[in-house]
Amino acid sequence: MFFTDVTAPIAYEGPDSTNPLAFRWYDADRVVGSKTMRDHLRMAVCYWHSFHWPGSDVFGAGTFDRPWLAPTDDPMAAARQKMDAAFEFFGKLGAPFYSFHDYDMAPEADSLAESQARLDELADEAGKKMEETGVQLLWGTANLFSHPRYAAGAATNPDPEVFAHAAAQVRNALEVTHRLGGANYVLWGGREGYETLLNTDLRREGQQLGRFLHLVAEHADRIGFTGTLLLEPKPQEPTKHQYDHDVATVHAFLQRHGLDDRYKVNIEGNHATLSGHDFAHEVAVAIDAGIFGSIDANQGDDRLGWDTDQFPRSVEMMSLVVYEILKGGGFDTGGFMFDTKLRRQSLDRTDLFHAHIGGMDTMARSLLVAQALIDDETLTGPVAERYAGWDGELGRGILDGTHDLASLHGLVTDQDLRPQAVSGRQEELERRVSRVIEQAR
Amino acid sequence: MFFTDVTAPIAYEGPDSTNPLAFRWYDADRVVGSKTMRDHLRMAVCYWHSFHWPGSDVFGAGTFDRPWLAPTDDPMAAARQKMDAAFEFFGKLGAPFYSFHDYDMAPEADSLAESQARLDELADEAGKKMEETGVQLLWGTANLFSHPRYAAGAATNPDPEVFAHAAAQVRNALEVTHRLGGANYVLWGGREGYETLLNTDLRREGQQLGRFLHLVAEHADRIGFTGTLLLEPKPQEPTKHQYDHDVATVHAFLQRHGLDDRYKVNIEGNHATLSGHDFAHEVAVAIDAGIFGSIDANQGDDRLGWDTDQFPRSVEMMSLVVYEILKGGGFDTGGFMFDTKLRRQSLDRTDLFHAHIGGMDTMARSLLVAQALIDDETLTGPVAERYAGWDGELGRGILDGTHDLASLHGLVTDQDLRPQAVSGRQEELERRVSRVIEQAR
Amino acid sequence: MFFTDVTAPIAYEGPDSTNPLAFRWYDADRVVGSKTMRDHLRMAVCYWHSFHWPGSDVFGAGTFDRPWLAPTDDPMAAARQKMDAAFEFFGKLGAPFYSFHDYDMAPEADSLAESQARLDELADEAGKKMEETGVQLLWGTANLFSHPRYAAGAATNPDPEVFAHAAAQVRNALEVTHRLGGANYVLWGGREGYETLLNTDLRREGQQLGRFLHLVAEHADRIGFTGTLLLEPKPQEPTKHQYDHDVATVHAFLQRHGLDDRYKVNIEGNHATLSGHDFAHEVAVAIDAGIFGSIDANQGDDRLGWDTDQFPRSVEMMSLVVYEILKGGGFDTGGFMFDTKLRRQSLDRTDLFHAHIGGMDTMARSLLVAQALIDDETLTGPVAERYAGWDGELGRGILDGTHDLASLHGLVTDQDLRPQAVSGRQEELERRVSRVIEQAR
Amino acid sequence: MFFTDVTAPIAYEGPDSTNPLAFRWYDADRVVGSKTMRDHLRMAVCYWHSFHWPGSDVFGAGTFDRPWLAPTDDPMAAARQKMDAAFEFFGKLGAPFYSFHDYDMAPEADSLAESQARLDELADEAGKKMEETGVQLLWGTANLFSHPRYAAGAATNPDPEVFAHAAAQVRNALEVTHRLGGANYVLWGGREGYETLLNTDLRREGQQLGRFLHLVAEHADRIGFTGTLLLEPKPQEPTKHQYDHDVATVHAFLQRHGLDDRYKVNIEGNHATLSGHDFAHEVAVAIDAGIFGSIDANQGDDRLGWDTDQFPRSVEMMSLVVYEILKGGGFDTGGFMFDTKLRRQSLDRTDLFHAHIGGMDTMARSLLVAQALIDDETLTGPVAERYAGWDGELGRGILDGTHDLASLHGLVTDQDLRPQAVSGRQEELERRVSRVIEQAR
Repeated sequence: MFFTDVTAPIAYEGPDSTNPLAFRWYDADRVVGSKTMRDHLRMAVCYWHSFHWPGSDVFGAGTFDRPWLAPTDDPMAAARQKMDAAFEFFGKLGAPFYSFHDYDMAPEADSLAESQARLDELADEAGKKMEETGVQLLWGTANLFSHPRYAAGAATNPDPEVFAHAAAQVRNALEVTHRLGGANYVLWGGREGYETLLNTDLRREGQQLGRFLHLVAEHADRIGFTGTLLLEPKPQEPTKHQYDHDVATVHAFLQRHGLDDRYKVNIEGNHATLSGHDFAHEVAVAIDAGIFGSIDANQGDDRLGWDTDQFPRSVEMMSLVVYEILKGGGFDTGGFMFDTKLRRQSLDRTDLFHAHIGGMDTMARSLLVAQALIDDETLTGPVAERYAGWDGELGRGILDGTHDLASLHGLVTDQDLRPQAVSGRQEELERRVSRVIEQAR
Repeated sequence: MFFTDVTAPIAYEGPDSTNPLAFRWYDADRVVGSKTMRDHLRMAVCYWHSFHWPGSDVFGAGTFDRPWLAPTDDPMAAARQKMDAAFEFFGKLGAPFYSFHDYDMAPEADSLAESQARLDELADEAGKKMEETGVQLLWGTANLFSHPRYAAGAATNPDPEVFAHAAAQVRNALEVTHRLGGANYVLWGGREGYETLLNTDLRREGQQLGRFLHLVAEHADRIGFTGTLLLEPKPQEPTKHQYDHDVATVHAFLQRHGLDDRYKVNIEGNHATLSGHDFAHEVAVAIDAGIFGSIDANQGDDRLGWDTDQFPRSVEMMSLVVYEILKGGGFDTGGFMFDTKLRRQSLDRTDLFHAHIGGMDTMARSLLVAQALIDDETLTGPVAERYAGWDGELGRGILDGTHDLASLHGLVTDQDLRPQAVSGRQEELERRVSRVIEQAR
Repeated sequence: MFFTDVTAPIAYEGPDSTNPLAFRWYDADRVVGSKTMRDHLRMAVCYWHSFHWPGSDVFGAGTFDRPWLAPTDDPMAAARQKMDAAFEFFGKLGAPFYSFHDYDMAPEADSLAESQARLDELADEAGKKMEETGVQLLWGTANLFSHPRYAAGAATNPDPEVFAHAAAQVRNALEVTHRLGGANYVLWGGREGYETLLNTDLRREGQQLGRFLHLVAEHADRIGFTGTLLLEPKPQEPTKHQYDHDVATVHAFLQRHGLDDRYKVNIEGNHATLSGHDFAHEVAVAIDAGIFGSIDANQGDDRLGWDTDQFPRSVEMMSLVVYEILKGGGFDTGGFMFDTKLRRQSLDRTDLFHAHIGGMDTMARSLLVAQALIDDETLTGPVAERYAGWDGELGRGILDGTHDLASLHGLVTDQDLRPQAVSGRQEELERRVSRVIEQAR
Repeated sequence: MFFTDVTAPIAYEGPDSTNPLAFRWYDADRVVGSKTMRDHLRMAVCYWHSFHWPGSDVFGAGTFDRPWLAPTDDPMAAARQKMDAAFEFFGKLGAPFYSFHDYDMAPEADSLAESQARLDELADEAGKKMEETGVQLLWGTANLFSHPRYAAGAATNPDPEVFAHAAAQVRNALEVTHRLGGANYVLWGGREGYETLLNTDLRREGQQLGRFLHLVAEHADRIGFTGTLLLEPKPQEPTKHQYDHDVATVHAFLQRHGLDDRYKVNIEGNHATLSGHDFAHEVAVAIDAGIFGSIDANQGDDRLGWDTDQFPRSVEMMSLVVYEILKGGGFDTGGFMFDTKLRRQSLDRTDLFHAHIGGMDTMARSLLVAQALIDDETLTGPVAERYAGWDGELGRGILDGTHDLASLHGLVTDQDLRPQAVSGRQEELERRVSRVIEQAR
């Protein structure tokens, strides 16, 4: 037992509870709209930040109290200890899902074959623990960015042998994900991009990446993986420029390579804001483009220029994200995955609970707000009214091809049309939203 | 005569000249590579910032010494005076092109019909002056953002009457551009976007914009306009979020609406950096996507978060932009248009000359650097070497479909492939570029 | 009557009200801690954005329905109409204060003497209206940034005649503020800074600014003005670099020029975030430095790089601001002034009510949160515990001079002291704050 | 021998050299103005980034070919190997200075006493190597940020025992710096700041930091260290907010604690831009405040929000930095220290040479530009002219106290003074600077 401060599963105690180790809002079986909170939110804990990262940063060593990360001559024993800790945590927290990279779970060995053997062995153990605890796999992925071989990219590496190595590694991770019943498989291209245009052949690297994604999709089909394949946009960091800059950039890429029916996006809150977009914007764009998949539920610090991966704490922000998702029909295979890091000073193991409970309550309360916005037609009413003209004769005639530029010109000059601006009512609508946030219960 | 400090056309006097009213680098007839500087750079002066803007900003009134912008009861007389000043300037400066919005040239009237009549009249005068001076039109455009009716967008307005009005206005501006032999027609959607998602129907507005662009393209075909249709990306300002955020976003949009064969992009330097990209990046992306059209040649201030539209002064930056363009084959119908503002304190009319001469010299010197980079294979050599593996058996086999994930996995495990990273040589290449910049003559 | 949609003063109707034209949280006479909401918050409406700005931006003309801003040959009549509208609004809204620039109230004339005469006349009328309505003046100020003469600064202008003009203008504005019983006088140096170091003598301009502030303070003493003199930090815009960059920069300046006992700061939320600081940070720094004065209560858009001056809508953010102020003892002569602009599309007059009611409710609810944080010792308890060691022998010995570097070195090596890090508990504390926000009533 | 590609000291070969392992501009003995390039620039190599950092980042392991950083059971042997490599490099490169943190040079042990013993031993060896090679120490410093004990700060830690430990460590590092004849001693407070205001007592931490700096200054006096004590501003990273945000913030702090005569600033280029300032701005502010000390010569990437610590490559930027320094009288004890990291892909040992040679040439060429700007009075002439009015009667009368607000008001109204703005000539001056950059030889 690693989490000795928490002796029983975290319980829902309601909004008035002052017990820091209880949920105030996340009540898994509570039905909101048509589904339970559990099924709406599909929340997942991540293996890497929570169990594989020691609390280090660029300027300092790890601070966390994680015995399984201590230097060791027996990495497999340490990996098993880590897995014990992780599943103890999953079980006590009560999140229905988790996610992992291949080498979070199994320590990478010198050869790919040995790495694969380790991964297979540990994945089998994970499978047993999943059965025991009921925790499911939201998604798996392969770490194609930490090893020095990937310094210049994996699929986009100037060396085709590195491409081959990455392909082989993804083959393993995808098959393990499939065996564990993963609902999705994610590709994050942290090194797929460039440091400087001076040494980069942009066109060639784009073709390589397109080919890689086709290979992955074909393999998924071959092995019968029916989960969703997801790309995760990020503008930069660690790379100066990443090719999957934001949702629209990914959409352009997918269309160009004939992949837009086969891949969706996994949107991260902090990646959205680093790319200059509100989190809700990226979700709205993905839904509109038909490529919305899943969410990395975190938030950044608007004053800092790097990925701080903080736990969601702003109901004001997250409500608008959940609202877009609900309007779009909710998650299919996706969910809210906490790709979140404790602050480096939050070094106690119990801090992992405080942070996740806080994050889950933030998302649960945001769900209540979002559902209320929909139920009350807080915004849908005014929006429908605002665009009502497009359902009239002129609007329809424009969209259905009745009009061309000349006929519209004739219309305006013949009738001396002088349309007047009307209020966008932004402050009034913001105030409506505030009221729903205040009252969500 | 408005520019009395400049009594003759600006001459080329060579690098050692200390005459501030002479070119040190722009020698129009000098052949660089296969073309003259004039034909490589196709530089253009803009009507709005240079002749229509009084030096005002959000916090203060106009400061410039521009008699044609004084309050008047006879706007057509003022517009003619403005046109005299503009063509006097074009002629003395020696830039081969100019650009304009409809209502820079002709003051907008209460009705569209009257506005059109004014535009037709003044465009005829412009045509005469073009013939007299030899100055040509790089592109025309319609101002769909200043009038209050466009506060919530033109094509993406919630009111279809505003769409109709915009359509009629573009019809006029496009026809005038055609009559004046414009090489391109530009659409910049300064208000096509949203202020808040709370009142916005993203999907509907996207459809409206797609429709609008189809209408414009069809009309261009109908009237026989063979110039290029250009969209100009910008991430925000004046709008919180503009739909044409950056080149990749525009590319996604064009593909989705079946417009990628019909529209190209007009990339502005300061818009690029505001969207989080280096200027050269946006050019490289557009060329790779096959949608590179033209350039708004300006630069921003990396410490400021808005569009400062400064004259190009950095050879270090612009050389890399011109290099990408030359590698891509150079301009077709596009050119470098100075979408640039004097600083508000640069209130003398002669400052317009200082600024444009400086900008033209910056671009001319950047052209010399870019051509030298190509001639010396400063970068192409190392880049070809870096990717050489992709021309080998494995690389070709990956790209041509010989390999799949399973075969690559077999290859890696069978041969115990352990590819090693090699140096990206960034600092060495940066130093090579510095040398070329130092020596460009 | 200009605001015909609002026929009676805005009433407090409580949290459950769905009346958009009523307060849900601002209940002026409700006692919170030791004071009424009115006396805690001291909220003020601003004349310029709300009555003097037509809804224009850099890319477009005014959109607002403000008859008093229509072109006119009788600027004084228009100014009186504007004042009628303003006081009608102040009265109906129920904010206890307002603020103004000299030339918001009185249109600037060609000569300073004439401008002064106009200001005196209109200020007398304002005085009468203040008496009638009970609305008080939070602060006055002089507009030293809009007129072309100030393009290169007022106090920091290279031309001493401009300094003299600014001094004369401030003399008038200060005297009028004094006559109207203003609680503070503000100086915002929008043009005090530089566009480029190339033409700037930084040292000289610093001396000029120091001298100017001494002159103002001496004049305030001479006329018996006992209000607070305030400087307003802003990092840039309209100027590339403003000398009053942020609170710490102003503090450095005030100390250097011996002005730190005579001036305090007026902190604006959006200016704070533009300078790279959280709003609460700037308040905390000012309180620590003993120069906290007043607040411009607005917020920006974290995705945009300019001053959007939006109405406060985030209780999550504002609660932490009010908390710092309450911990610091609350306002003395300062208050929360809404230096806020409607969005350009919010063109109805009634939008001014929606926006201000929303802003006032945001601040009122933030006050409730802040008071609860204090009453519950939500944070003060953990913070006191965290630093408890500094009240022990070692801590006291360090601070009182008992220890020097050598004795501390001896202590550490003699005792082989190996202090261990403890958890900073950030996520737990954030969660505590969330609970207080949820429950504030 | 570790740097086998470089068999002899790097030579100066002049601008036309295409030898990548030769200087094109840095000609140590060349006299520029009144001093040699060596004495103007006082360039230094840093131990940490160049010899102690393996090429890791937050997302990946080290990539560099540095045998002395391999895992080892004998850290002192590895440290000696590292020192051999470092001094081999210093000697071959020909930079006159180097800099180090205590634990770059000597591996930290479990106890401070043991760490001290290691440092003393290795510093003695460094001393011998300095004598042999002639390389001198620009500055030493203590690493108060990497060890977990410093997670919540060193001097500003909530635990006074951590303060004591930091004090003891600085005592050692300062004494070693003194023994090695260091010209300066630097304090960089990477963890002196806060992650969240929620758990922070800002006032208390400020007092702690002030006390710490007094202790250090007193100890420096006691041991007879006559070098300069330097603080290094940085806005954030690793900490959310660092107390030494920028030069002005440090100036405020030093004045408040009576330390402004005892400390100066060490300004880093990339820290300047991260704080929202141009590099040259920070230098100008420090010189004006009388606290200019030394420079960390690097530059960032304007599109990235974290400290990229790149080698100086922009003559356009660095020339303006060197110009401010020369105008201010040049370095006293300070110098240009390359606090610069190779890109992670620049993994060959020879890349260290390419990068440093490039950086040194950039600074050398910038020195030539700066000296030419001064010699030609390119900017000083126009600036003097611009402010000439302040040497006239009115200007002097304002500054010397002859005038007060009332007399200036009288002057303006009596004479109906209407000062006119004049051109700031920014574009013209930028163009002048471009010419000097082009021609610097």
